[in-house]
Amino acid sequence: MAKPPTVEDVARVAGVSRQTVSNVLNSPEIVRESTRERVTAAITQLAYRPHAAARQLRTRRSSTIGVHLDPYTGGISGVLLDRFVHALTERASERGMRILIYSARTAEEEMERLGDLIDGGEIDAVVVTGTFFGDPRTGWLASRDMPFVSFGRPWGGDDVFRSPHTWVDVDGAAGTRTATRYALSAAGPRVGFLGWPSDGGTGDDRERGWRETMNEAGLIAPRFETADGLAIARATMTSIFAEGDTLAELDALVCVSDALAVGAHLAAADAGRRSLPVIGFDNTPVAEALGISSVEQSPELVAAGALDLLMGPTGTVVALRGSDSAPEHILVEPRLIIRPEGPDVS
Amino acid sequence: MAKPPTVEDVARVAGVSRQTVSNVLNSPEIVRESTRERVTAAITQLAYRPHAAARQLRTRRSSTIGVHLDPYTGGISGVLLDRFVHALTERASERGMRILIYSARTAEEEMERLGDLIDGGEIDAVVVTGTFFGDPRTGWLASRDMPFVSFGRPWGGDDVFRSPHTWVDVDGAAGTRTATRYALSAAGPRVGFLGWPSDGGTGDDRERGWRETMNEAGLIAPRFETADGLAIARATMTSIFAEGDTLAELDALVCVSDALAVGAHLAAADAGRRSLPVIGFDNTPVAEALGISSVEQSPELVAAGALDLLMGPTGTVVALRGSDSAPEHILVEPRLIIRPEGPDVS
Repeated sequence: MAKPPTVEDVARVAGVSRQTVSNVLNSPEIVRESTRERVTAAITQLAYRPHAAARQLRTRRSSTIGVHLDPYTGGISGVLLDRFVHALTERASERGMRILIYSARTAEEEMERLGDLIDGGEIDAVVVTGTFFGDPRTGWLASRDMPFVSFGRPWGGDDVFRSPHTWVDVDGAAGTRTATRYALSAAGPRVGFLGWPSDGGTGDDRERGWRETMNEAGLIAPRFETADGLAIARATMTSIFAEGDTLAELDALVCVSDALAVGAHLAAADAGRRSLPVIGFDNTPVAEALGISSVEQSPELVAAGALDLLMGPTGTVVALRGSDSAPEHILVEPRLIIRPEGPDVS
Repeated sequence: MAKPPTVEDVARVAGVSRQTVSNVLNSPEIVRESTRERVTAAITQLAYRPHAAARQLRTRRSSTIGVHLDPYTGGISGVLLDRFVHALTERASERGMRILIYSARTAEEEMERLGDLIDGGEIDAVVVTGTFFGDPRTGWLASRDMPFVSFGRPWGGDDVFRSPHTWVDVDGAAGTRTATRYALSAAGPRVGFLGWPSDGGTGDDRERGWRETMNEAGLIAPRFETADGLAIARATMTSIFAEGDTLAELDALVCVSDALAVGAHLAAADAGRRSLPVIGFDNTPVAEALGISSVEQSPELVAAGALDLLMGPTGTVVALRGSDSAPEHILVEPRLIIRPEGPDVS
């Protein structure tokens, strides 16, 4: 397909300056009639469209995908969603789509914001991030007939692979399975797990990979839990390590996030065992800086998968609902980044 | 000002369902004529505008600000720009503006991309990030009469406060001045600096704050340099600490970035001096996790300032050039986040 004509093309064909074309479009009264006619003829000849807005009205396509951007809350793992948005922007740009980001602090506020964007015809599709158990957003989008894909599977359903909508997600259980197997082979049989309180979602999925691997091997090791955050994880594990022989009885610790892994590492070091192998999840810059092994989610693959599901091979947004075939999903297999030297902050 | 009418309002006034209104707008042939007339009357009565595209054509305002989003390159400091984009999205949303993000790997590619967005009428204003010495983007935007503000001052000019465009930036020299004064009072007179090779920009500005503070105090301490990055900084400082008494002759080290500060901390620890006070710049999650003091840039204040400059107190995008008064600028004073316990990774 040829590139759409530009103001420069019109100026060249009409034999006038770019500014004159702009004047004809915006302030025709200041342009001489003969010049105005030349420019108008060039515009007609080239089928030049001065504003995307005109194109949008004609095609009902804004070529824009809406993505929610959380408020920045600091912490270690926030970078993951940002990597996804960066990658989505690049991949979308290659397909001629724009990314429009909006903020919202709750699912309700997000639906209100999306309602405005949809009513305004400002977006053609939505990428939903951070799905959770009981998430109202996906059903709401479906009821609005808005094409969307979620980064995050529908949690809590009987069979997520027969989901009513398309999704792309990272196989958290596969990630902790790989991490647990590695820890068993490299450190010993007593591989514990440090997780979040049960959330019916991401945290439970990651814990499952550890639990199943240990069960299959006929092994038992303790499972600890703490809220997310380096400081709280460090304090929790410091208390736990102070009681009995917990620390001495651990060969390694697989953790649900890098924040928990760093906290556990610091607690172990405080308790005199700097060498306790800990494995995090998210492969953040902090894990990299500290030499802590971690599961890499590959948000770049997730972004590419989201666009594949949303736009299909032809590159135009496809309505994903209402077809007879079940919507598709993509489950990205994460990789374990092994840092065999272990935490090397001394 | 009243909220613009929605599809729901039209449906209510016409006494029909939301879907019927949608049908009238999109597939009027399937709606009975009497119903169609009721809906059309309600649309007229409420002055309902079905698409933002129509509004855009009428007002020539897309209510959208374009912002460049770099490819994710990993590393420690990448989070800073993301914090800025998060804050910009929130603040813009409060003012009824959208943020459209685009990718580009070079300034040339960015101007090409912006040209498309401007020609398409898809953006009303631009926030330019990451200005550098000889940056062609700002002059190009000015030549296109596109309202813009840069995060980053124009580097290399005789007097940046008489800049040809508005900008908001962080006062890097003020940040390192505060850091150096704190190090002098808390650690001792021999406060060194670890910087990047001279770049005619951000790095030189931050170094100036250290140099001027030392000069004013009549003190001399060494200045080291390395490319950005934790590993290269650590290797460089390890070599330097291996020669002579460099490490023993330092009371503290002010660093141009957190990556360099963490690298220097690890090198000092390797050389047996874990307690060397280092101060970073950017207050990243890594510095926070390691308990390393750092200069906080407050990208949230930068984002608020950028919108103030771009939109003015009335909240509409103002053309910033061509007025008689000199364009404005905002220089945000950074804060030193002191972590007096020092790097506490053990």
